[in-house]
Amino acid sequence: MSAVKLEDARRVIGAAEKKAKEIGQPMNIAVADEGGNIVAHVRMDNAWIGSIDISMKKAYTSRAFDIETKDLATHSQSGGQFFGIHASNDGKIMIFAGGIPLKRDGKVVGAIGVSGGSGDQDHAVAMAGAAAY
Amino acid sequence: MSAVKLEDARRVIGAAEKKAKEIGQPMNIAVADEGGNIVAHVRMDNAWIGSIDISMKKAYTSRAFDIETKDLATHSQSGGQFFGIHASNDGKIMIFAGGIPLKRDGKVVGAIGVSGGSGDQDHAVAMAGAAAY
Amino acid sequence: MSAVKLEDARRVIGAAEKKAKEIGQPMNIAVADEGGNIVAHVRMDNAWIGSIDISMKKAYTSRAFDIETKDLATHSQSGGQFFGIHASNDGKIMIFAGGIPLKRDGKVVGAIGVSGGSGDQDHAVAMAGAAAY
Amino acid sequence: MSAVKLEDARRVIGAAEKKAKEIGQPMNIAVADEGGNIVAHVRMDNAWIGSIDISMKKAYTSRAFDIETKDLATHSQSGGQFFGIHASNDGKIMIFAGGIPLKRDGKVVGAIGVSGGSGDQDHAVAMAGAAAY
Repeated sequence: MSAVKLEDARRVIGAAEKKAKEIGQPMNIAVADEGGNIVAHVRMDNAWIGSIDISMKKAYTSRAFDIETKDLATHSQSGGQFFGIHASNDGKIMIFAGGIPLKRDGKVVGAIGVSGGSGDQDHAVAMAGAAAY
Repeated sequence: MSAVKLEDARRVIGAAEKKAKEIGQPMNIAVADEGGNIVAHVRMDNAWIGSIDISMKKAYTSRAFDIETKDLATHSQSGGQFFGIHASNDGKIMIFAGGIPLKRDGKVVGAIGVSGGSGDQDHAVAMAGAAAY
Repeated sequence: MSAVKLEDARRVIGAAEKKAKEIGQPMNIAVADEGGNIVAHVRMDNAWIGSIDISMKKAYTSRAFDIETKDLATHSQSGGQFFGIHASNDGKIMIFAGGIPLKRDGKVVGAIGVSGGSGDQDHAVAMAGAAAY
Repeated sequence: MSAVKLEDARRVIGAAEKKAKEIGQPMNIAVADEGGNIVAHVRMDNAWIGSIDISMKKAYTSRAFDIETKDLATHSQSGGQFFGIHASNDGKIMIFAGGIPLKRDGKVVGAIGVSGGSGDQDHAVAMAGAAAY
């Protein structure tokens, strides 16, 4: 059974939202469970509609490879060992910052995905969310 | 600008969740805004993972045609005037009960989509959510 | 953590294969875990290549809705309460016999999907596999 | 008729699994036949779920172009003669290491695809599998 319950997802999203407000950038925030399936998603008022999909896919990607999408990005540029990975998984792989695994006892059991600002902003908000898990 | 803010979506989802608990069937619940874009989604613990996608698409469909998906269903069966509509919109059209428009002053400004039980259960939970808007 | 390990999937597939040989119909057999993700798949010699995809999707579908796809079929025909569900989940929903949930202590923790013969044959082979879990 | 039978695929997968255990990295391993169609797939316990799809597509790609995906990669980076090839074949082309053709009498009759670690690890495990054919 998934260790990421709706209650957990809401706590993670709440912490991420708080951070997004602090930096003044509205975000889409999604949480996925161990199987990579979405548990919850919110779009803050005025956040980009194009980022709904991206936030969910960042959460999926981060769990799918047990990695921060920020780090996956470094291996997925032209010339990198994973270049082309964004064409896999039927378009569900996002290779830029904003996805961070959720861990319990050192094991990845889900992930948060954030989209709506710059790569640094997305990552910072995702970090705040992950820290609340 | 969309009249369905995140605060509204949460209130709608909260009312739907309450109803789902009353009938003892865990649900996926999604809310879309005027543009048909998702504002928020939750998967209650133990709700079907196949219903994540369906709840979001029921919300989209209900706003896309300003109709309850339960009613759209009656026109979309084999032999009906809209048979085949489920193949449109890149697969985003759901033609069975669980999607209900959210209205303000008689105008559709968004929709709720519910999936996780029988057609009757999904519709009842969506009704409870819509009533809270 | 998923309760369906590779060792379990192989035992389930082995039992299904044995049944397929008994009835003389080569099959594609797939096993999915709690998250709906494939654990293992085999295509028996001379089994239909069009059934590779179907077997995997039957396993996904059965776990996605915690139901035998044979039963989902009865609700998904034109006029039924779930007609149109095959258009959801990006084409991953199969609504004919051959997918059966794998349960532990009454809880669905995965599924087997079989494709390669008639609906009755697929279901019988899937039953044999599920019984070995 | 395909020269890669299920028995062959299992032997190839077994050898690859053994290598994966030696290097301590759980992998997804897939084998495709002469037609590029999957014969068998396994996901070792704790291997990435995002690599299920990739392992199958590396096997397809390697047979589709009778080439190691590691070599295809060198021609498919930005500026290379095949840049953009990953957008062909409905997203089934993987252009990074881990796919290796299976040959009989100098002729490509199938392929193995491995995903779950670094490019070097994937390639090494695929080599071990191919050697068992």
